[in-house]
Amino acid sequence: MKANELTAVQASRAIANGTLTSEALVSACLERIAQREDAVQAWAFIDPAIALAQARAADAERAKDGVRSPLHGIPVGIKDVIDTYDMPTQYGSPIYAGHRPAADAACVSLIRELGGVILGKTVSTEFATRHPNKTRNPHSPLHTPGGSSSGSGASVADCMVPLALGTQTSSSIIRPAAYCGAVGYKPTFGLINRAGLKFLSESLDTLGVLSRTVADAALLTEGLTGLSLDATPTLVAPRIGLCRTPWWDKADAATQALIESSAARFAAAGAKVSAVSLEPAFDRMNEIQIAFSSYEFYRALTHERTRHPGLISPSLTARLAAGGTVTRAAYEAAQADTRHCMALMARYFDACDIMLAPSTQGEAPGIEGTGEPTFGLMWTQLGLPCITVPAGKGPGGLPLGVQLIAAAGNDAGLMRAAAWVERMLAAG
Amino acid sequence: MKANELTAVQASRAIANGTLTSEALVSACLERIAQREDAVQAWAFIDPAIALAQARAADAERAKDGVRSPLHGIPVGIKDVIDTYDMPTQYGSPIYAGHRPAADAACVSLIRELGGVILGKTVSTEFATRHPNKTRNPHSPLHTPGGSSSGSGASVADCMVPLALGTQTSSSIIRPAAYCGAVGYKPTFGLINRAGLKFLSESLDTLGVLSRTVADAALLTEGLTGLSLDATPTLVAPRIGLCRTPWWDKADAATQALIESSAARFAAAGAKVSAVSLEPAFDRMNEIQIAFSSYEFYRALTHERTRHPGLISPSLTARLAAGGTVTRAAYEAAQADTRHCMALMARYFDACDIMLAPSTQGEAPGIEGTGEPTFGLMWTQLGLPCITVPAGKGPGGLPLGVQLIAAAGNDAGLMRAAAWVERMLAAG
Repeated sequence: MKANELTAVQASRAIANGTLTSEALVSACLERIAQREDAVQAWAFIDPAIALAQARAADAERAKDGVRSPLHGIPVGIKDVIDTYDMPTQYGSPIYAGHRPAADAACVSLIRELGGVILGKTVSTEFATRHPNKTRNPHSPLHTPGGSSSGSGASVADCMVPLALGTQTSSSIIRPAAYCGAVGYKPTFGLINRAGLKFLSESLDTLGVLSRTVADAALLTEGLTGLSLDATPTLVAPRIGLCRTPWWDKADAATQALIESSAARFAAAGAKVSAVSLEPAFDRMNEIQIAFSSYEFYRALTHERTRHPGLISPSLTARLAAGGTVTRAAYEAAQADTRHCMALMARYFDACDIMLAPSTQGEAPGIEGTGEPTFGLMWTQLGLPCITVPAGKGPGGLPLGVQLIAAAGNDAGLMRAAAWVERMLAAG
Repeated sequence: MKANELTAVQASRAIANGTLTSEALVSACLERIAQREDAVQAWAFIDPAIALAQARAADAERAKDGVRSPLHGIPVGIKDVIDTYDMPTQYGSPIYAGHRPAADAACVSLIRELGGVILGKTVSTEFATRHPNKTRNPHSPLHTPGGSSSGSGASVADCMVPLALGTQTSSSIIRPAAYCGAVGYKPTFGLINRAGLKFLSESLDTLGVLSRTVADAALLTEGLTGLSLDATPTLVAPRIGLCRTPWWDKADAATQALIESSAARFAAAGAKVSAVSLEPAFDRMNEIQIAFSSYEFYRALTHERTRHPGLISPSLTARLAAGGTVTRAAYEAAQADTRHCMALMARYFDACDIMLAPSTQGEAPGIEGTGEPTFGLMWTQLGLPCITVPAGKGPGGLPLGVQLIAAAGNDAGLMRAAAWVERMLAAG
């Protein structure tokens, strides 16, 4: 196995026991990128010299003394809506071509403090909204990697890097991870510090991790938060609520079949599976998310929409215009509806450890868009932790994922159950 | 009356009816600053040419067509932890000497969009924490203006500008406003969009307004949020809960007497005043705020503490070190305690419209510090809207204020009651 194909957990162990250096690992990642970047275009910025200098510094530090963080020497890709002081940060927009922030975002400097290597900046759609950027699905150049964490999903799935940071406001971690065949983990709202993130919707924007395994996502999150996430599969099978959601008929036949067959497989493996039928109050959560987030987009991007309107895509321009028509009263009504549904949702989790739902409507569509966020909106609006786990391929030959969701704050329970699900799906 | 002494509401009316131009108003503010800045040192950056160009542009726009926002042509000071694209933004720290952000913060560009004039940047303490900067209390050069919104409080109180933006994480709007004899309004957490604010504690940092009247604070907040805040004094006297708080014995005799006599005066004017006795759960809210915020400070300022430790003050260095020892478990326990107290607090507001409490321990102390945040911590931790209204002077001849607090989201009720209190105190 080439070093770039190792998971972060495997690489971390190999570095710790002296059979791998950070320099060798980073070199292998850079070699993979050199081979594949023309086809995948996952990177907004990468400079091998900057990456290798960090890897050599990590190796030199380790030689000096002993015990290190598990992230020490491990390369991480950083979505380009997150500030880095030593690499351009362009927020997926021509308005910020060549922009150099004065400081690292908190999450970036925390990774550096733990000895992690900032490999480069991964491509984001325009301000982490829906207008596509240059990245292609690593499984097919004619298909989107999904958005908005397009480069994070594609680079991780293509073994260019074991870990990448992403952000989700609607479905921007879950969707690209599922389309690319990766794990995508959006924590409970607020878990990872957001200082230095370009805000789109401050009430929803959530930092998270894209990786190839559940344990890898846990590794990076533990380093950033101090939270203990035991991603060892539970011995006891989780209680699973099968949640078809109010948008079930928007999922294609293969996705519906995948969710149903996964539930059956989990039940056969000992999980207690029951159907969750959400009250009618949840039917409007997707439209509420769109109005609520649009109100915040309009405000957060005031500088850009007033000073650089000609450099904003037509689709984002339309979204911003719609945001300008959302009244304060409508926004506050959306907040109140959200709080109501958060309280209702907490009760469903008395009867199950996690819910199982579609990650996307189906396989990745073409490169003219980034796919629909349908199956991410409600969970994000409610601030719940969710994760997508790869679940084979659809009829078109592209990856599909299954999404798991836990109660707010139960990230540890989500990761344990996700590790169990991951093992069951791998065994299938 | 000189134009710089007009309230924002008065100036806005005068501009609307053609008896004042923005250029004349801004010129009067600049003249006052030229006279007083050597003594007060409220400004981190001011360039008369940049300010006057905006004022002339506002006047020219108004000449072209008619109806305008009430903020059109009105100058606003911006605390220097808030990004501006055309003025340096230094976050009160030598680390950022000469720093030029690529974009305006949302609140700044929203003011510009409404035709407001960004007059200059007001002095902040170091990253809006407690280490003092150069500003002096406008009532006495030997006394602190308070922090962290030091320049916003001093400039507004000294009639250098009618309105200024501030931020509060602990007591950073209430304290400087009270010490300087100004109105300071910290809205419900999250009311004013924070994109482009330098984060210290993302769960607590709240944008707000310093001004000389309650109606002026409402004027700017309405423009930034679309919220309707009717700051006309209520005809019906509010129901007032006298909340001595668990820290009553830290208030000096003059402050205790002020709160008691104010309550008596409000009762005599028809307000239903009752004492609020908080349950023991609230006794720990101040220590909880300190541990909770320290955990977030440590993460938010990772870039600065790891790359520029020599440029951080000893007091902030100590605070950050303490933050590094707060475990995730302790942080989550603080979150849970806070949620518990938020729910308890909501019930107290069934019996009163607002609470009355001290704004500070007493008058402004000397310039070696910025005073104690004691009477701001709990309300900020609970996310509640609060406002300080000037209430005469203490035995040392420096200003005192009284603080009013409302239920989360009841900013409109707070402002109405505050306008009533302001009128009663003026009548006294």
